[in-house]
Amino acid sequence: MRDVYIIGVGMTRFGKFPDRGLKSLTQEAVDQALKHSGVEKDKLEVASVGNAYAGIATGQESIRGQVVLRAMGIGGLPVYNIENACASSASAFMVTWMDIALGLHDIGLVLGMEKMYLEDRDKRLSLFSASMDQDIIEAFKQMAKASAESAAKKSGAKGKGGKRSLFMDVYAMATRWHMEKYGTTQRQLAAISAKNHQNSALNPYSQYQEPMTIEEVLSAPEVSYPLTRPMCAPVGDGAAAAILCSGQTLKKIGVSKPVKVRAAIQASGRDRGMDDPDIGEIVADKAYEMAGLDPEDIDLAEVHDATAFGELRALENMKFCPVGDGGPFSEAGNTSLGGKIPVNPSGGLESKGHPVGATGVAQITEIVWQLRGEAEKRQVEGARIGLTENGGGNIGLEEAAMVVTILERI
Amino acid sequence: MRDVYIIGVGMTRFGKFPDRGLKSLTQEAVDQALKHSGVEKDKLEVASVGNAYAGIATGQESIRGQVVLRAMGIGGLPVYNIENACASSASAFMVTWMDIALGLHDIGLVLGMEKMYLEDRDKRLSLFSASMDQDIIEAFKQMAKASAESAAKKSGAKGKGGKRSLFMDVYAMATRWHMEKYGTTQRQLAAISAKNHQNSALNPYSQYQEPMTIEEVLSAPEVSYPLTRPMCAPVGDGAAAAILCSGQTLKKIGVSKPVKVRAAIQASGRDRGMDDPDIGEIVADKAYEMAGLDPEDIDLAEVHDATAFGELRALENMKFCPVGDGGPFSEAGNTSLGGKIPVNPSGGLESKGHPVGATGVAQITEIVWQLRGEAEKRQVEGARIGLTENGGGNIGLEEAAMVVTILERI
Repeated sequence: MRDVYIIGVGMTRFGKFPDRGLKSLTQEAVDQALKHSGVEKDKLEVASVGNAYAGIATGQESIRGQVVLRAMGIGGLPVYNIENACASSASAFMVTWMDIALGLHDIGLVLGMEKMYLEDRDKRLSLFSASMDQDIIEAFKQMAKASAESAAKKSGAKGKGGKRSLFMDVYAMATRWHMEKYGTTQRQLAAISAKNHQNSALNPYSQYQEPMTIEEVLSAPEVSYPLTRPMCAPVGDGAAAAILCSGQTLKKIGVSKPVKVRAAIQASGRDRGMDDPDIGEIVADKAYEMAGLDPEDIDLAEVHDATAFGELRALENMKFCPVGDGGPFSEAGNTSLGGKIPVNPSGGLESKGHPVGATGVAQITEIVWQLRGEAEKRQVEGARIGLTENGGGNIGLEEAAMVVTILERI
Repeated sequence: MRDVYIIGVGMTRFGKFPDRGLKSLTQEAVDQALKHSGVEKDKLEVASVGNAYAGIATGQESIRGQVVLRAMGIGGLPVYNIENACASSASAFMVTWMDIALGLHDIGLVLGMEKMYLEDRDKRLSLFSASMDQDIIEAFKQMAKASAESAAKKSGAKGKGGKRSLFMDVYAMATRWHMEKYGTTQRQLAAISAKNHQNSALNPYSQYQEPMTIEEVLSAPEVSYPLTRPMCAPVGDGAAAAILCSGQTLKKIGVSKPVKVRAAIQASGRDRGMDDPDIGEIVADKAYEMAGLDPEDIDLAEVHDATAFGELRALENMKFCPVGDGGPFSEAGNTSLGGKIPVNPSGGLESKGHPVGATGVAQITEIVWQLRGEAEKRQVEGARIGLTENGGGNIGLEEAAMVVTILERI
């Protein structure tokens, strides 16, 4: 297996861009990544493109990647269109990485993209449903809704008006299970969220750039108990891109500050008992084994905080703290900038935003910037090794897909 | 790069199955492939799933593979959902092949699946449109329609009633270009189609199992001049599966009659002039180079005859005959069973059927059966090396994706 390096990254700001399509967003991200790498677009030899919802959002299925790449004058190379819900572009990263590691090609592109901010609100909400099994989704919705309403009643929180978000109800169920089992508190979750909104205020690429306090997070409108709105990733648009190359190419073109892929692991969830090991934990163990590293070696991480609970659980799964301790570990400031292990310095999905097909590569983009010392006001000092964790979709009790990468500045 | 072997294949019959969903179709194909290989489902370590239209047809986007695999009790392994229009499952084959060749895993699944026979005819026709750039499709439709109507007028053929099929109009344009440039005749195209319908009558997995003569093909209703209905692939449903493994595993489990992957190459089309080399030709050259083989070494092939012209062009691109000679070469019987190089012994897309996401793996399935001597009435005697060519979607003048594999019985 050949070593593979990331030599350039780029992304659009995440946000709501009703006047921009996927071609415009991807062009910006790819241009930036090419410029960052010093590689010309005609040197690209393979491309993988992650996207989840263009079929529903725009009618463009089947050749989503070729269509946007052609618009920027890129063609004639292998293109893999990869779907894995919110883990689409980290899964796409796996494919370009495999291709180069195997020696098929020397320089490749990974692109993640999503348009989610549709004018039609019903259609917007319907996007997420596509990331669950369509045959059982109605029963699942009813179950999650009943559970959320019962929890809201018990907690005394005001009942939620309007349409329920299925994914947030499902996340909330898992959160309540953790609260019950380990004594995790709503305030601990709010601490995670406030930290991310504070980081995000330092990130010019973030959808939200206003810092929030724990009190503000707690007093925000409830989405599904115990999750309030700032604890949940918003709907948005965006694209992110990375340029990968082999070690031979690295030497030939003399790239500065390359980042080596120490590990890249993907797995799908499976049916399991609530107390069985999480797929995230299993994937993390494999990633540490592949990298020959321990959790203590990781200097910073970008994890999949589609809700604040997603980050809490990831801290445990990635073994940054013992299982059950994610709440107190966060509240004590360990994951803040300047803490023991800064997590989501970008602001995370909650505040940087979560255009789902773009998220995996955007996480990698942030880690690469951090490892190269290019993260400006949110720079983690001395960062050398970073980790990304990107989950997607829902199968049984867990993510339908989970990808962990470990990256090292050499 | 490690050697990779195909140790089992399976498929459903292709056809119109209004009462069966993707879960039912895929279960049948995967069960058959597992049984063929002697491998139990819990030994699978990685899976790639090709599909083009489930998002539009059923609303299931994002985690299409996980959903059908979970229904058959398969989970916890990496799952890649791959889209590349009609080349979706050959592209999925590339990914599982890369994974095993790289040494990430030892036993993997490739699955292709499609439900296209929808009750709603308008929705059925809309499927194909998703395989072109949505931003320019209306202009493209008008251009193809105008060209088809002008050709029909000149040829004296009766004007076609009802909705036009965009893809068939585009194929017909390319066919007319070849007729004009090389003197190819409609009768030569009909010879290709009649040969495929004759082969298909020997294949219990085919959608159509009635032999047709050249005269019958010529006198059938016109779809878009010069293409008549039997020269065009029908709409249908189906699934196909293959089990791949590493050389080490092959020795360990003692599989009989394994088929070695000698080459697997994918590339996307690009903007080019009408007389520039076809992407199919470029991919074929690379495949022969990877395999260290010449076109003369190929004993039989399954190629992408979405129309009879698709096969004609593939014969030239794969270098089975000189460029321009595809018509006379076919009419002389070289590609028939018992001919110089049997092509589409299965009946091809025209007659075996073309549930698009299933087609690439179905081609591989036929080649594996043939190389193992299991093709019964349509067996190519002494077949040792076979080739598949699977194209998909449309970008500029050519396929958005093209995959060629070369397989050898060892």
